[in-house]
Amino acid sequence: MNIIEGGIASPIGFEAAGVEAAVKYENRKDMAIIYSQKPCVVAGTFTSNVVKAAPVKWDMDLVENSPFVQAVIVNTGIANAGTGKEGMDYCIQTAEAASKVLNIPKNAVLVGSTGVIGAQLPMDKITAGIDKLAAAKAHSYESSTDASKAIMTTDTVNKQLAVTVDIAGTTVTIGAMSKGSGMIHPNMCTMLGYVTTDAVIGKDALTKIVKEDVIDTYNMISVDGDTSTNDTLLIMANGMAGNPEIKEGTPEFEAFKEAIHYVNETQAKRLAGDGEGATALVECHVLGAATKADARTLAKSVICSSLTKAAIYGHDANWGRILCALGYSGAKFDPEDMELYYEAAGQKMLIYKNGADAGYSEEEATKILSQKEVKIIADMHMGNEEARAWGCDLTYDYVKINADYRS
Amino acid sequence: MNIIEGGIASPIGFEAAGVEAAVKYENRKDMAIIYSQKPCVVAGTFTSNVVKAAPVKWDMDLVENSPFVQAVIVNTGIANAGTGKEGMDYCIQTAEAASKVLNIPKNAVLVGSTGVIGAQLPMDKITAGIDKLAAAKAHSYESSTDASKAIMTTDTVNKQLAVTVDIAGTTVTIGAMSKGSGMIHPNMCTMLGYVTTDAVIGKDALTKIVKEDVIDTYNMISVDGDTSTNDTLLIMANGMAGNPEIKEGTPEFEAFKEAIHYVNETQAKRLAGDGEGATALVECHVLGAATKADARTLAKSVICSSLTKAAIYGHDANWGRILCALGYSGAKFDPEDMELYYEAAGQKMLIYKNGADAGYSEEEATKILSQKEVKIIADMHMGNEEARAWGCDLTYDYVKINADYRS
Repeated sequence: MNIIEGGIASPIGFEAAGVEAAVKYENRKDMAIIYSQKPCVVAGTFTSNVVKAAPVKWDMDLVENSPFVQAVIVNTGIANAGTGKEGMDYCIQTAEAASKVLNIPKNAVLVGSTGVIGAQLPMDKITAGIDKLAAAKAHSYESSTDASKAIMTTDTVNKQLAVTVDIAGTTVTIGAMSKGSGMIHPNMCTMLGYVTTDAVIGKDALTKIVKEDVIDTYNMISVDGDTSTNDTLLIMANGMAGNPEIKEGTPEFEAFKEAIHYVNETQAKRLAGDGEGATALVECHVLGAATKADARTLAKSVICSSLTKAAIYGHDANWGRILCALGYSGAKFDPEDMELYYEAAGQKMLIYKNGADAGYSEEEATKILSQKEVKIIADMHMGNEEARAWGCDLTYDYVKINADYRS
Repeated sequence: MNIIEGGIASPIGFEAAGVEAAVKYENRKDMAIIYSQKPCVVAGTFTSNVVKAAPVKWDMDLVENSPFVQAVIVNTGIANAGTGKEGMDYCIQTAEAASKVLNIPKNAVLVGSTGVIGAQLPMDKITAGIDKLAAAKAHSYESSTDASKAIMTTDTVNKQLAVTVDIAGTTVTIGAMSKGSGMIHPNMCTMLGYVTTDAVIGKDALTKIVKEDVIDTYNMISVDGDTSTNDTLLIMANGMAGNPEIKEGTPEFEAFKEAIHYVNETQAKRLAGDGEGATALVECHVLGAATKADARTLAKSVICSSLTKAAIYGHDANWGRILCALGYSGAKFDPEDMELYYEAAGQKMLIYKNGADAGYSEEEATKILSQKEVKIIADMHMGNEEARAWGCDLTYDYVKINADYRS
């Protein structure tokens, strides 16, 4: 697998664009398109929230029932969630407008929205935006970048990625873009994540890869414990690389799956590290758990703990809060027989063992906790399973951003 | 039931004190005693955290196995959690020291600790503090107040209460003190809560009342989602009121239970409203739920949502976040057929119905959300069950307090 400079429009036959449509804010790119010159098979996972945004319902239907898809239209500013029948109509009108200008079937147009809940979409601006997107779309790094910037809300950096992987002698390309960065506690997948590939692969194989991979990638991050109404991860494959079809049970399937995993994990970690107000990416690596489920539960409990997150913001080696979060996770273990470590910038430090403080240097610990990427390692001594989860610190800026998000 | 000026030492035969022992900080009361002139039956509930502080283990054993109890010794500053065998020894030494000076059996002395996790107790200061407590203890409102102040950590106000209730012609008194205010997400009961009564009541009846009542009181509050290692609620009854014994299945049992419920709910709400950094008490009242369990789950999900809490701090009527929190709670409902209201200071406002905004005035909503006590009402249209949960807003000060709690 090779990492290349690129994004969502890097695979053969994919085009992208990001434009200013003034959906809610002026002077920023706020609509994006992903377009494939050929029809794509599609797989996706969506929020488990009972309250689903209109575009989530629309996309779920298409992923299930549409023979193929060929485009995604995304807007930011307004989430089109909590908008009732009117909102659903606007979502369908969005697909219709794109269908006309792109000359593809309506049910080949996926729709994504992110932003404030409860407001209705300004349809005149949306349709004008779609016309601009159709005119601007291109197969280039710049257009990938524009699209990845257009889907940002409170994100501070755009998040895109492209890799190539050799499939039986054919180079297959995978591109991706995602956005966070508040209401992030995915329980299927995150706010908005898109993956494109020119690989030849069937829908069943693609679906299997996505459903399995989100469990250890997007579903293992949390910014604030709030599972959004709009979580969507879509992967589109247009087959233009011309490789022999990737089938389950082959080395090619494993190689492709590994590449998708790299892309998803990288994007998920970027979302966590760019959580609202965050100054650090926090990874919790749980080792020696009795079961894989326990390992995931323990790791996620730590990165969700407000007190642990605030302590990391303060560069305070307050390991009691980590121990506490492991303790209330629901997984069983013996607090008298386990170890905790901090690790950052290549330095690893034992902080807790045998039920008590391991006698570390506070000064050294604070140095480790002042890094941009901090790892918490918990060795549970209960078995051989492990898991990683990612989050961020809890800062003044998180409160500031969210005390007045709508104004 | 009558509310009276009083606290933990109000019931007949109870004494209390709070003194400066410099366990961790100088110039503040940091040790408290509750003492009963006669032996008490005791009931209690404790943290469900796998990691239990030494005094929690000690108290759990006494509540289960000791024939009676007669005193509680509490210190703040150090939680005596994550302290291994050494910490357990210090806890036992605390009970022994109190046993000697009070001339009661060691296993009649309950112990409570709250503060930083991982540090060891300075036993010389603890034993000196116990001597001071034994000398100072008194049956008075002032001594109740001193004790309730001594158990505070980041609490901004002390929390005590006393009520009387008529039991078959005899006046029975109930006193209480509790402390919060971080690491508050009780899952059995909260950080530290003590209730005293002079009622004549058997251990089984007392246990039944406590175990049932915490479900809808202490277990329905959250400040930060972190279930502490030290959660303890103890209720001691010394029988000195001389009432006919309160037995299950009688009107007296119901009257006493109702009084205990009032005490527990009042104290729980005070903990929520005085959560770290809080500027408002937030109540979520869920109506029309399909089951009682659903009602509790929905109400608690809302008051635990970081985004909802931050919006209330910002006085922002961002109901989408409430809808979102209901949606990811795990309870089933139809978001197109339910209503949301805000209520405060006698004003109630419909904000969401039929799947969309109800067309309320943002200005009026902001006025409601600027009150010190804000109620969120969710009518689920799924059945007849209801529940209430209490929390607080998420503020800069929460982050400030917890980014550097230990220094």
